[in-house]
Amino acid sequence: MKGGEQEFRFDTDHEKIFRQESSFSYLTGVEEPGCFLTIELETGKSVLFVPDLPMEYAVWMGVVYPKSYYEEKYGVEEVLFVDDIPAYFKEKNPNPIFINRGVNTDSGHTTMEATFDGIDQYKVDYERLFGDIGECRVIKTPQELEVMRYVAKISSEAHKQVMRKMQPGMMEYQLESLFLHECYARGGARCVAYTCICGAGHSGATLHYGRNNKRVEDDEMCLFDMGCEYQCYTSDITCSYPSNGKFSDKMKVIYNAVLACVKAVSKEVKPGAYWPDLHRLSERTMCEELKKAGLLQGDVDNMMKHFIGSSLQPHGLGHLMGLDVHDIGGYPGGAKRSAEPGLRNLRCGRHLEEGMVLTIEPGCYFVDAVLDPLLANPETARFFNQEMLATYRGFGGVRIE
Amino acid sequence: MKGGEQEFRFDTDHEKIFRQESSFSYLTGVEEPGCFLTIELETGKSVLFVPDLPMEYAVWMGVVYPKSYYEEKYGVEEVLFVDDIPAYFKEKNPNPIFINRGVNTDSGHTTMEATFDGIDQYKVDYERLFGDIGECRVIKTPQELEVMRYVAKISSEAHKQVMRKMQPGMMEYQLESLFLHECYARGGARCVAYTCICGAGHSGATLHYGRNNKRVEDDEMCLFDMGCEYQCYTSDITCSYPSNGKFSDKMKVIYNAVLACVKAVSKEVKPGAYWPDLHRLSERTMCEELKKAGLLQGDVDNMMKHFIGSSLQPHGLGHLMGLDVHDIGGYPGGAKRSAEPGLRNLRCGRHLEEGMVLTIEPGCYFVDAVLDPLLANPETARFFNQEMLATYRGFGGVRIE
Ligand SMILES: [Mn+2]
Ligand SMILES: [Mn+2]
Repeated sequence: MKGGEQEFRFDTDHEKIFRQESSFSYLTGVEEPGCFLTIELETGKSVLFVPDLPMEYAVWMGVVYPKSYYEEKYGVEEVLFVDDIPAYFKEKNPNPIFINRGVNTDSGHTTMEATFDGIDQYKVDYERLFGDIGECRVIKTPQELEVMRYVAKISSEAHKQVMRKMQPGMMEYQLESLFLHECYARGGARCVAYTCICGAGHSGATLHYGRNNKRVEDDEMCLFDMGCEYQCYTSDITCSYPSNGKFSDKMKVIYNAVLACVKAVSKEVKPGAYWPDLHRLSERTMCEELKKAGLLQGDVDNMMKHFIGSSLQPHGLGHLMGLDVHDIGGYPGGAKRSAEPGLRNLRCGRHLEEGMVLTIEPGCYFVDAVLDPLLANPETARFFNQEMLATYRGFGGVRIE
Repeated sequence: MKGGEQEFRFDTDHEKIFRQESSFSYLTGVEEPGCFLTIELETGKSVLFVPDLPMEYAVWMGVVYPKSYYEEKYGVEEVLFVDDIPAYFKEKNPNPIFINRGVNTDSGHTTMEATFDGIDQYKVDYERLFGDIGECRVIKTPQELEVMRYVAKISSEAHKQVMRKMQPGMMEYQLESLFLHECYARGGARCVAYTCICGAGHSGATLHYGRNNKRVEDDEMCLFDMGCEYQCYTSDITCSYPSNGKFSDKMKVIYNAVLACVKAVSKEVKPGAYWPDLHRLSERTMCEELKKAGLLQGDVDNMMKHFIGSSLQPHGLGHLMGLDVHDIGGYPGGAKRSAEPGLRNLRCGRHLEEGMVLTIEPGCYFVDAVLDPLLANPETARFFNQEMLATYRGFGGVRIE
């Protein structure tokens, strides 16, 4: 396995804050860049390969630690230098070498890959390891759950602080900044699991809004999706509330509908449940609630056939969480996502098992780019109370997570 | 010219906050990733090439803007799609094409480079542009200076806030977090020019210390080197002060010596001055002051010959600043740094000109990795009052910038 490398801002000497690659962190906990790990399968012996830092490093970057420091800190059986890798393999002559290579199903990006001079002289299995690590990461240990509870608590407290300080007239980024400060200063959480999404009013209709540079106006719905991370473990929390603290009737309709989805799904979430079914349950609940409220009309089964729920909740119900906020393992072993609206944006297509961690985050968004085509088509337009819908243009969205 | 691309955390869909490449920002001000720029030298006509975003983008990332939006926002003559680049060059048939390629003298890294399908059919000049842009960037316009004064003011106010809140018992990262929050929430400065260096006590002796995870103890010297950036323009400020607000006699010796260096250099800094000379002036002043204080002994000219000043101030006196905190242009046209101690870490080897922006940041550090070899050698050991020096082990450092 190859750990993450130190990154720079373009061609400059601006060093970015190092965050370890998730699977490498999972296996080692190593916080330093530029390392490699081997595990000998027959004996379980782990060897950490660290960079051989020049003495000059001590002046600029602190003490150059001896190998014993890493041995003790990370509990590996042996520490060698990265330059020792070819000789190490020559001596061990493993057959095969398992290398982590695979495609992340959320991003479509391929993992970075360990290699060394002379690797072509060995039999290498590039298939198995990626899936196996993924399956390990999917089921959390009690220790992992403890860290995840900690990081969720830090994010949660920071959200509360943001709620307390929120006032119309503030800039979205001021609330993002406050969240970051609370997480870091109170919780020691230096990084966030994803760029903070602080959308007030119409900003809230952009699902991955991250500019956060609009003024928060009076009587706007705020949709704040922010989560920090600690020891590379992530959190993911979305809170929706009115900028001035008072829910208008218009806001109540949407908020209560989303809340009903949370409740409906929470009742059914248990080992054995099929996640895509729960996604559809959330969409159905949304349609039922918005029909009660008069925003939708017609038969709910029919709405489901026309994916009306999917169009209001263009994101999936939720996803696996862990060392990545969209954690590995949602579609294991090359499983494909459904092409249907709604499900095609769902990041997990599995039956639930004990020890999995998932978010439940239904939402209701009013996105012009989604609604306009639906209203232009009589087949789908008939489900909407268009007069009422018009009042929700520019409203943004609600999500509860 | 090629603008910066959106970056992800390893293979995941975690999008990093986008910060434009500095020279591209200099020429365009463009805030979006994935763009290219051409300037037709005969006419001065500028064309911005933007990615052709799919409609799906509107749901997740906000409105997909028409080309006219970019034309207006950035004042370019024409906006085309990135995919149009080969056809554009085919029509214009330029001879030659100037492409930005060069090595950053602070990092040793090479610039990223614009290319397109079919570029090998043109005559391309990879030499000239890099140096020319560098020379443009070295001399700041009044408008640039205005932005740089703004960003320096934001950082300065944030430093003051950190000073006010500083108390022994806090963690270094809490003060970093406060700085970041002040810059972003008050100044709209989302990024920092470099990772905050918050070193209390012995942490301060690591020049690029950035872990910031030590507890600040009573009666420690704090060395806080932090600067935010705005519109990609950087700031760079170091403050040194005691954790409990009271300078001990031991601290005063070092602080006053560094302050004397600042004053000596500030008197001589003017157009025509040779920056390496000012660096040596700072080292000489340091030796004189520490001799007065009794920490050094012997003849100052002799100390200079043995680079005693360089060993206490292992960084350079200062550097050009602008769109990068270590700005481009310190050694133009392939000029080499002196190999001498002190000067070999100096990031600028030029005669000063009006419109240049530089930091003046002398310092005095007690780094074991530097001092131990000096004391082991009688040639250099004789300049130190070893008994007094021993009391400064673990002291950290002082820098004033
Ligand atoms: Mn989520
Ligand atoms: Mn500096």
